[in-house]
Amino acid sequence: MAITSKGLSWLRTPAEEDAPPGVKELYAKANEKLGFIPNVLRVYALRPRHLELWNAFYDDLMRGESALTRVQREMIAVVVSTANRCHYCMVSHSAYLRKLTGDPVLVEQLRTNYKYAEIDPRERAMLDFAVKLTEQSAGCTEADVEALREAGWADEDILDIAEVAAMFNFTNRLASGLGWVPNDEFVKLGFDETG
Amino acid sequence: MAITSKGLSWLRTPAEEDAPPGVKELYAKANEKLGFIPNVLRVYALRPRHLELWNAFYDDLMRGESALTRVQREMIAVVVSTANRCHYCMVSHSAYLRKLTGDPVLVEQLRTNYKYAEIDPRERAMLDFAVKLTEQSAGCTEADVEALREAGWADEDILDIAEVAAMFNFTNRLASGLGWVPNDEFVKLGFDETG
Amino acid sequence: MAITSKGLSWLRTPAEEDAPPGVKELYAKANEKLGFIPNVLRVYALRPRHLELWNAFYDDLMRGESALTRVQREMIAVVVSTANRCHYCMVSHSAYLRKLTGDPVLVEQLRTNYKYAEIDPRERAMLDFAVKLTEQSAGCTEADVEALREAGWADEDILDIAEVAAMFNFTNRLASGLGWVPNDEFVKLGFDETG
Amino acid sequence: MAITSKGLSWLRTPAEEDAPPGVKELYAKANEKLGFIPNVLRVYALRPRHLELWNAFYDDLMRGESALTRVQREMIAVVVSTANRCHYCMVSHSAYLRKLTGDPVLVEQLRTNYKYAEIDPRERAMLDFAVKLTEQSAGCTEADVEALREAGWADEDILDIAEVAAMFNFTNRLASGLGWVPNDEFVKLGFDETG
Amino acid sequence: MAITSKGLSWLRTPAEEDAPPGVKELYAKANEKLGFIPNVLRVYALRPRHLELWNAFYDDLMRGESALTRVQREMIAVVVSTANRCHYCMVSHSAYLRKLTGDPVLVEQLRTNYKYAEIDPRERAMLDFAVKLTEQSAGCTEADVEALREAGWADEDILDIAEVAAMFNFTNRLASGLGWVPNDEFVKLGFDETG
Amino acid sequence: MAITSKGLSWLRTPAEEDAPPGVKELYAKANEKLGFIPNVLRVYALRPRHLELWNAFYDDLMRGESALTRVQREMIAVVVSTANRCHYCMVSHSAYLRKLTGDPVLVEQLRTNYKYAEIDPRERAMLDFAVKLTEQSAGCTEADVEALREAGWADEDILDIAEVAAMFNFTNRLASGLGWVPNDEFVKLGFDETG
Repeated sequence: MAITSKGLSWLRTPAEEDAPPGVKELYAKANEKLGFIPNVLRVYALRPRHLELWNAFYDDLMRGESALTRVQREMIAVVVSTANRCHYCMVSHSAYLRKLTGDPVLVEQLRTNYKYAEIDPRERAMLDFAVKLTEQSAGCTEADVEALREAGWADEDILDIAEVAAMFNFTNRLASGLGWVPNDEFVKLGFDETG
Repeated sequence: MAITSKGLSWLRTPAEEDAPPGVKELYAKANEKLGFIPNVLRVYALRPRHLELWNAFYDDLMRGESALTRVQREMIAVVVSTANRCHYCMVSHSAYLRKLTGDPVLVEQLRTNYKYAEIDPRERAMLDFAVKLTEQSAGCTEADVEALREAGWADEDILDIAEVAAMFNFTNRLASGLGWVPNDEFVKLGFDETG
Repeated sequence: MAITSKGLSWLRTPAEEDAPPGVKELYAKANEKLGFIPNVLRVYALRPRHLELWNAFYDDLMRGESALTRVQREMIAVVVSTANRCHYCMVSHSAYLRKLTGDPVLVEQLRTNYKYAEIDPRERAMLDFAVKLTEQSAGCTEADVEALREAGWADEDILDIAEVAAMFNFTNRLASGLGWVPNDEFVKLGFDETG
Repeated sequence: MAITSKGLSWLRTPAEEDAPPGVKELYAKANEKLGFIPNVLRVYALRPRHLELWNAFYDDLMRGESALTRVQREMIAVVVSTANRCHYCMVSHSAYLRKLTGDPVLVEQLRTNYKYAEIDPRERAMLDFAVKLTEQSAGCTEADVEALREAGWADEDILDIAEVAAMFNFTNRLASGLGWVPNDEFVKLGFDETG
Repeated sequence: MAITSKGLSWLRTPAEEDAPPGVKELYAKANEKLGFIPNVLRVYALRPRHLELWNAFYDDLMRGESALTRVQREMIAVVVSTANRCHYCMVSHSAYLRKLTGDPVLVEQLRTNYKYAEIDPRERAMLDFAVKLTEQSAGCTEADVEALREAGWADEDILDIAEVAAMFNFTNRLASGLGWVPNDEFVKLGFDETG
Repeated sequence: MAITSKGLSWLRTPAEEDAPPGVKELYAKANEKLGFIPNVLRVYALRPRHLELWNAFYDDLMRGESALTRVQREMIAVVVSTANRCHYCMVSHSAYLRKLTGDPVLVEQLRTNYKYAEIDPRERAMLDFAVKLTEQSAGCTEADVEALREAGWADEDILDIAEVAAMFNFTNRLASGLGWVPNDEFVKLGFDETG
């Protein structure tokens, strides 16, 4: 039995026209930026108020003011989603990161085994922490936080790293638990930018 | 080496008086309701904007309109935090659930092995899903969602269950990854209400 | 389906009056000390000779002459039972340890994530070993024993630590494998003693 | 670094002549039966009172009155010790079971993958339960006990099966945690009896 | 510390001109077909005789006569390499499968969570078996083989499925254990063929 | 249900007389050396061309020119097969190693917990790497390879170690996935050579 049955999710997906104004605005913005509406916005619209509140928080974590660059935040997204083997988020955030960096080779490294990526020690420490937080959070100790400080991250930055990693532990579970299917458009996104 | 070093977290905790007005309001509300300020609000104040946005979303999930009762949402909180062995959230949400139910025996069952709890089949299906989402999200299938429908949950409710379970996968990781220490007050909370 | 079906165990529980004299004596002693008969003594009475021989050994390990204090032995009981997620033993030994120490906060730390407990290095080494013995005994090496010696334990004490940890690996399996249900009385036990 | 350093254990082993009379009696009996003293009796003699109490209990479980045959109890010993990868107990109890059955092929099956053993359905149910108890006791349910009843075991027998399996979870941890080395004599024991 | 240090492997890579004639022939053939020499042929040339014998076997498994199509064999390659998180083989065999199928969406499904792939039941059974063989071979039973027969595979085909899955358990271990780095060319390979 | 149903495998085993000449030659050679035909050669003959190509590669790895001795290669075979709990390969390669070394005590150590074996540091490093490659290949790093160099192995030897370990990850999966049953003759093989 295939895991998906044509739909975008194992739950009912509301029709676009039934969305409340706040959600329709999210659709318009996404469409303008990407040329399509990411399926997450359609399937999560089953609970429009939750979608809007989640999106406000998510958007600030991923695009708001922070010592972490946009690229670094998407690196965490890809690496955490890979650790959780989340189909939707691996496909979509690999695309976002290819688009941001123009570096599909880097993205292939991050989404198979991030230890092969040629990144700087600060970023390596950041990803090591994100993965430990994901896979064995109860085993984290003060030494893990200390390693981030030694790599050059301030306390505020460490909280941001933890929040972004924790956020994908949230979204990965919605996507994997409810069978969310990514847009086909993501698959080829971000290859043209290179070279 | 002890995991905690006196503080409330492995990161710096901002002084109460330095909090912006929105955060101070959260402190006041919590203090009024509980008689103390839960440490999560102090340690997360290192990034006040994130705290406010997270709290708006969290509060709606846990207290907003939903087919899930307040008690059911706290049951998920306890069971997910137990699966993740999260010290802060096990201690605090056990307290909240004792307070809500006046039933410390039930809480003991949920926070050791929820299969011993004498709950109805709808709630059992809800908790089975929350735990699978937590421990092996990539292994979830449409059959898991179907089991919730058969237990009587509508699609909107299933999304709510998934969101609450996913939310504690978010907070558990912040708490365990950053060494958050719960208030001692939680430990005895909710025992007096019984009988 | 609830894991328990009213009874105290998934096996038949013998009537109190059918117990042989040696077992009745255990009931009387326990009743005198606690004000009730712990269910373990009722359900294990299905094989009275085994119960008596086990109890003789168990009682000497937990209360006999040793360099380990009563409290330290109960700390191992709580931490091992938590690692094994044993409902009966977590509930009952948390109660015993609250009663012995008058410190419910400590017990909450030990039964969620013992690394948060503020205990001395000798006790930390003792618990680290008890958990490793429980979760990955085949991975133990001479270095683990050496760490206990360095923390100040003599060889006889190390054997005692190993025996108490191993004993709860015995009882946890009986309790979890046979569905033993703890007395409700345990849940509130040991809170009054504090302060 | 080799795991063993010549000795029989990572702890000090008391000299034979220093053993109290009760322990010396155990040595004499074992020597008479096997032609040598199993090292467990030497290394455990560091705490002679514990050794005697443990041995009284162990001996009754393994040789006392029960619906389980001697062979069935040793089958559990081999299968549980294999699941725990316990060097001492795999070597010694494989020898005992070869001696009892004269069937080294059966023993090879039990100590690699017991599913290859050609045993009757009652014994298969017994071993399935022993392994589940060993590897995931917190996941046991009433259905596991029911499967044993359906295979023909009475409640008393199920308790015996659980106790024998739990006992090797006790001894495996002492042996693996303290580096016990089995007597070389065990290795060839029980091959001559066959055919 | 980055996992790779510029080179193609953690071991010394022999110069192309030092390769014996049989290996040079492999280089020429690969170059003709792909336009580049896959790094596996360079790094494995440290033991040229092994490389030639391995390649003869591998080539027959992957391209020789079989009831499995070329595409099906590459599907197993991708899914097994994903289960083992093998960087080199995920990158290279995703490329081969995109090239063969012209279907990058299918490849994205297979290399994140193959349950999302819309494939026929025979192929699903084939992949289920390949993954079980990879992740828990000791847990395989006759029922797993029976499920393949029921899906329509003959005994010879089942052996082929097992061999291809086992082969990638071989190559994944060489690549991951010795730090093999895939050619950058693989990353964009097979996207142009689509549409 | 027993895992085996009389046969040598869960798949059909071809009759000896139906084997092509190349396979019959393998039978003759094995028979001459051992006095019987190992079942692997019978069950794998379902795909005779694969059997011959595999055997050519396998034979060179295990008996061809290498800095690893025959004994060291069989040590890897036993330790990897133990880590994978492969019934066929544990039984057969324990026998081969007993025959080669005349040391059944060593073989017992290697097939229960190789850390108890009294071997030299080079061999210990070799086995540590073989087990890591088997159990967590994606976690291997350049430091693991460096540890082998420090123990005295050249790069060519490290490739040989990895290949032999990877080969048993191949054969273990065929044997465990297809239910191969070892010849009874293996069980007693290699005990007489001792002393």
